[in-house]
Amino acid sequence: MRILGVDPGLNRTGYGIIEHDGAKPRMLEGGVIRTQADAPLEVRIATIAEGVRAVIAEFDPDVMVVEQLYSKYGHPQTAILMGHARGVILLVGAERGLEVIDYAASMVKRSLTGHGRASKEQVGAMVAHMLELPEAPQPNDVSDALALCLCHASPMRRDTPKQGLPPKIAEAIARQGGTRS
Amino acid sequence: MRILGVDPGLNRTGYGIIEHDGAKPRMLEGGVIRTQADAPLEVRIATIAEGVRAVIAEFDPDVMVVEQLYSKYGHPQTAILMGHARGVILLVGAERGLEVIDYAASMVKRSLTGHGRASKEQVGAMVAHMLELPEAPQPNDVSDALALCLCHASPMRRDTPKQGLPPKIAEAIARQGGTRS
Repeated sequence: MRILGVDPGLNRTGYGIIEHDGAKPRMLEGGVIRTQADAPLEVRIATIAEGVRAVIAEFDPDVMVVEQLYSKYGHPQTAILMGHARGVILLVGAERGLEVIDYAASMVKRSLTGHGRASKEQVGAMVAHMLELPEAPQPNDVSDALALCLCHASPMRRDTPKQGLPPKIAEAIARQGGTRS
Repeated sequence: MRILGVDPGLNRTGYGIIEHDGAKPRMLEGGVIRTQADAPLEVRIATIAEGVRAVIAEFDPDVMVVEQLYSKYGHPQTAILMGHARGVILLVGAERGLEVIDYAASMVKRSLTGHGRASKEQVGAMVAHMLELPEAPQPNDVSDALALCLCHASPMRRDTPKQGLPPKIAEAIARQGGTRS
């Protein structure tokens, strides 16, 4: 199964593609689609749509995974603009025939790190560990997109992993003040 | 010139098409694109995109007019979902080669009624008057979409009309507590 994860944003939309055949998940690509801040909104979202279409055309994923909407956002205007980007991304996924799935941010974090309020750094560290990358992909949007893929691939999606975290990750989690059940 | 006005909403997206050749503007069509509340979000926005594409294919407008984003929205979640709809509408407009223009709600109201805080009823009454319709198109989303078209067609877009309102409209405005300069 090929999984496309997308982290929508008007300035930067992160995406990741992983191949998951039941064994170890493998990253095929991770990147960002950037838009020009001074371009008209319709041009910016067209750039995002074209970028996502190009990724789908190249990798032919089976499923698109995005983050669930929260109930609260800090900056309403930014959230509405993110909504514009998210809307066209979902549209492209639907029109290309992909299954579209969303997960709550807390579930993504829990499935990767064992706790639902992990920091971006903890998530990035687990993404790097699981995909055998030398470090967390940058910018964060890419790590977040790959985290969505890994959540979808995870057999532990609804459970808290009780063991198996490598010492460095466990240490990073402890350092960030996270709790593990 | 053919003008497409769109009032984006996830449940109902209103649209209107007017022909404006310098004489009296004429309505070619007004309607709503409805989506099923229990359908997945990506299906709902695909329905909106298809509906707008169909209107564009039939009427071949030159320009798409939408309302500018506000700085504040009452219900953030609703605003984000509206953002999804607005995003795909702008995308369709851009991809079909239409010029995309937005006007502040206050400018639309002012160009039609003479004051920027007119009620929906006042705007609807002016839409009906200007397009020689027996009454304001319903639901409000259609009137609002046609108001956007009329604002774009208006030579008074930036000015306050000093005269020329028919007595019934002036009376409605006065009754609603609006002020006219």
